[in-house]
Amino acid sequence: MKPTIRDVAKMAGVSISTVSRVMNTPESVIESKRVRVQQAIEQLQYQPNSFARGLIYRKSFTLGLLIPDIENMYYAGIIRGMQDACIKLGYSLMICNTDRDKNRLLAYIDAFHEKQVDGIVFASDVIFPEYYEKLMSCKIPFVLISSHSDEYEVPSVEIDDEKAAYDAVKFLIELGHRDIGMIGFNHENSISGPPRYQGFLRALHEAGLDHNAEKIRCAAHRFEHAYDAAHELFTDYPELTAVFCVADEFAMGVISYLKDRNILVPGQVSVVGFDNLRMANMFIPKLTTISQPMYEMGYRAAEKLHELVTTGSTQVLREKLEHKLIVRESSRQR
Amino acid sequence: MKPTIRDVAKMAGVSISTVSRVMNTPESVIESKRVRVQQAIEQLQYQPNSFARGLIYRKSFTLGLLIPDIENMYYAGIIRGMQDACIKLGYSLMICNTDRDKNRLLAYIDAFHEKQVDGIVFASDVIFPEYYEKLMSCKIPFVLISSHSDEYEVPSVEIDDEKAAYDAVKFLIELGHRDIGMIGFNHENSISGPPRYQGFLRALHEAGLDHNAEKIRCAAHRFEHAYDAAHELFTDYPELTAVFCVADEFAMGVISYLKDRNILVPGQVSVVGFDNLRMANMFIPKLTTISQPMYEMGYRAAEKLHELVTTGSTQVLREKLEHKLIVRESSRQR
Repeated sequence: MKPTIRDVAKMAGVSISTVSRVMNTPESVIESKRVRVQQAIEQLQYQPNSFARGLIYRKSFTLGLLIPDIENMYYAGIIRGMQDACIKLGYSLMICNTDRDKNRLLAYIDAFHEKQVDGIVFASDVIFPEYYEKLMSCKIPFVLISSHSDEYEVPSVEIDDEKAAYDAVKFLIELGHRDIGMIGFNHENSISGPPRYQGFLRALHEAGLDHNAEKIRCAAHRFEHAYDAAHELFTDYPELTAVFCVADEFAMGVISYLKDRNILVPGQVSVVGFDNLRMANMFIPKLTTISQPMYEMGYRAAEKLHELVTTGSTQVLREKLEHKLIVRESSRQR
Repeated sequence: MKPTIRDVAKMAGVSISTVSRVMNTPESVIESKRVRVQQAIEQLQYQPNSFARGLIYRKSFTLGLLIPDIENMYYAGIIRGMQDACIKLGYSLMICNTDRDKNRLLAYIDAFHEKQVDGIVFASDVIFPEYYEKLMSCKIPFVLISSHSDEYEVPSVEIDDEKAAYDAVKFLIELGHRDIGMIGFNHENSISGPPRYQGFLRALHEAGLDHNAEKIRCAAHRFEHAYDAAHELFTDYPELTAVFCVADEFAMGVISYLKDRNILVPGQVSVVGFDNLRMANMFIPKLTTISQPMYEMGYRAAEKLHELVTTGSTQVLREKLEHKLIVRESSRQR
């Protein structure tokens, strides 16, 4: 007869839940017990069937991911990382695309609830009270990625947006640029819009370049919007020799606009993007950009959710991963 | 008391399943009965609750989508179309990314089965016997998108790959090009690789340009592979003045390679892509390409799956949608 988790617990002289913890979160079990359990598992050649494991802690071995825009290449990297972690941890990953639609998002939470997912990762959006209450009432553990909540105690994984923007603008200043503009996110309903603008302002202020503080136009996520925003920005401030963009797609829109105006990048204007999408390295010119560790963020979010699902809490509530400036072809010494 | 589906059936003098069909697939019910049911629904102000509807035909009001590579921008358009149809038809859409891994794909079919999805759309891959048998044994209805099966009677939605490639190459020939190369998909395990190469050959043959038939190098889905394949192609055939690429990402790789060699596109070499990704219009130069109706394909696949789920069959088994040549900046008269 196949050995059961009871047999393992008996042989190791521990409770069933300790055996379960050794399998799910070994780091939460003290060394001596862990070794005993692992030896018993080996001796009995115990292979937990996933259904039995699920009965103990997890219900369905499935995690859900809610993303706001499947056409935004940013999420592909997050999904890959999250998926690799899910495979390691024994989960299936199901993805739903909300198109930034409130009702759709709430409906998908219901769908995930019906399907008994063990937890949800919620990407990029602001956690509005109605989302929070819905998730709490469904009793589904959740983690935020590329987002955080100041109001609620929700685990999150993101980068330091203020510092990342500061680094990008400081880089342009160090290249000798004195007239620097920005293409930002609309601030309402945006998590990363305000801190990235703060980073822009801090770098300017440190260098005595506050006269640029107003040289920002906002765009709504897409290339075309950034193209139009660049038109407004350069119409108002033709003196600009550098633009900091809060998304690689925006940088591509700005560069396309400048190309159509016969302004050379980086010959006349330097452009720095944000994200380091796969496309950043395919575009002509290749983009100088702030690299977000998308893969690692996805990976960490899944691990964090697993920690939350299996232990009921996370050791670190709000986690920030490191960004990095990647210098390629779209920027140049002034 | 709220009226039930029984009340509607009674008033209209039809069976409950006829009422259900009027709600799910009205076109399958003869005019006279349909009108009676619709009048009864209106008079009683009957609002089917989704749970009751689910009990009749559908189980969970969820469709699953299996895609091979979330980082390929091609799938974003398909997902948007499929999702909009799902919303219209009352389904949630759950997406799983297989990374072209056989075991992962089989595991996701199990996961969808456990979650009782009503049906699955299976994108781009070849339907191997083990996939087919797995799906049949789970009794999950499924539809292929950007793929088809000659062996099995599986509904599918795709374009005419041979004709699309033919159109692209014929366009290059009409521009005056006589030395034309191709960057194709590896043929093993590829659904669209062989017919697109056939289309290339047919256009060449018609124009008496068979001497180009061997001028093909294959690449494995990514920009970097196409960059390397372009290096091989132009090393062997430096006389080429045009290249047909079976993916926009390949076209971008070829153009980047040519740029690094200081060969002008379209000044010296014309490049035609395939797909018409969002990026095709953002790239510099903007890509001339074959537009696949990705959104419509996703939309139709969901409708077709709904038809299959609710009626047990589809009127048209293998459906082909129209492609279109989009002329932009990457091609020029020879």
